Amino acid sequence: MGLAPWRGPLARALHRNRSLVYSRYAQLATVDAQGRPHNRTIVFRGFYRDTDTLAFVTDRRSEKVQHIHHQPWGELCWYFPQTREQFRLAGVLELVDGAHPDPWAQAERQERWQALSEAGRQQFLWPHPGQPRTGDLPANAPVPIHPPEHFCVLWLHPQHVDHLELRGQPQNRYCYRQTPLGDWTVVAINP
Amino acid sequence: MGLAPWRGPLARALHRNRSLVYSRYAQLATVDAQGRPHNRTIVFRGFYRDTDTLAFVTDRRSEKVQHIHHQPWGELCWYFPQTREQFRLAGVLELVDGAHPDPWAQAERQERWQALSEAGRQQFLWPHPGQPRTGDLPANAPVPIHPPEHFCVLWLHPQHVDHLELRGQPQNRYCYRQTPLGDWTVVAINP
Repeated sequence: MGLAPWRGPLARALHRNRSLVYSRYAQLATVDAQGRPHNRTIVFRGFYRDTDTLAFVTDRRSEKVQHIHHQPWGELCWYFPQTREQFRLAGVLELVDGAHPDPWAQAERQERWQALSEAGRQQFLWPHPGQPRTGDLPANAPVPIHPPEHFCVLWLHPQHVDHLELRGQPQNRYCYRQTPLGDWTVVAINP
Repeated sequence: MGLAPWRGPLARALHRNRSLVYSRYAQLATVDAQGRPHNRTIVFRGFYRDTDTLAFVTDRRSEKVQHIHHQPWGELCWYFPQTREQFRLAGVLELVDGAHPDPWAQAERQERWQALSEAGRQQFLWPHPGQPRTGDLPANAPVPIHPPEHFCVLWLHPQHVDHLELRGQPQNRYCYRQTPLGDWTVVAINP
């Protein structure tokens, strides 16, 4: 099976917005055990090999990890300022921590750790995210070659994709849906 | 009671990012009746009078309105690219449609309609959002002086605010919480 049909428009958006470093930032919504939504900015790290799975990195100690254990469905909202278009990608979130059994996933986790900047890796040496700050954070501690246990790759396996183009009056909007067989339908919808 | 303590940092972020029109765009997460999160970009329209309530506009026919009836709690994620900082504002969402009983709210709804651009008002004349597109959308229909019934103001009454400053190594993060009495606490937390 080839790439999903929304991959072309998304690749174009990434290319046309490449001058903005923050065009790789998007907002991920999750739901907590009380049924309330949470939303934060995360950095797109690329696709997992030749799949349609988006890769991010996260800290197992962060709140979103508890949310995902409770409700694995998430939605990413990704706005591209230069081309004025939005992708909403919804699907199942999967965490790859040090205990994930798949050796390919572990290799991916190692590679994502190596690919992080020094400053990016430093953040995983900081104390528990979200807890009261009790002093200075280690700024220049040596970073290990292998990722710490709490370093996770986070995968989003999209099943619904909503693409809105604000340019033009009227606008264009397309809804992509994955069927149970794994292929995709696309419909033009009202913005 | 004065303005909430997060209003100063948010006002500074808005001011310092004012050269980017999209610094007024943020992502709102809601939860549907199946307990799944949804996430979309919305435009900040200012505060409601001299309160800490953020105002947006929306279409009563959009999916988020059904979500809010089911679960009024929402979280807005607002990233400011120029200053590299993020605000997450969580609280109760309130819809002001044509049936809202408060005359002040109705006055606000009228004002927000008048303040929209011609193109912004045109969008409320389009057919049902999210349904299959069956033809061209009206591009230059005359817009009414009074808002259509499905034009809503959407209010977010924040109760938790999380402010993350990415600039600097290490970063800074602050957690603001409203107490049941309506005043606010603030704590520095680990990023």
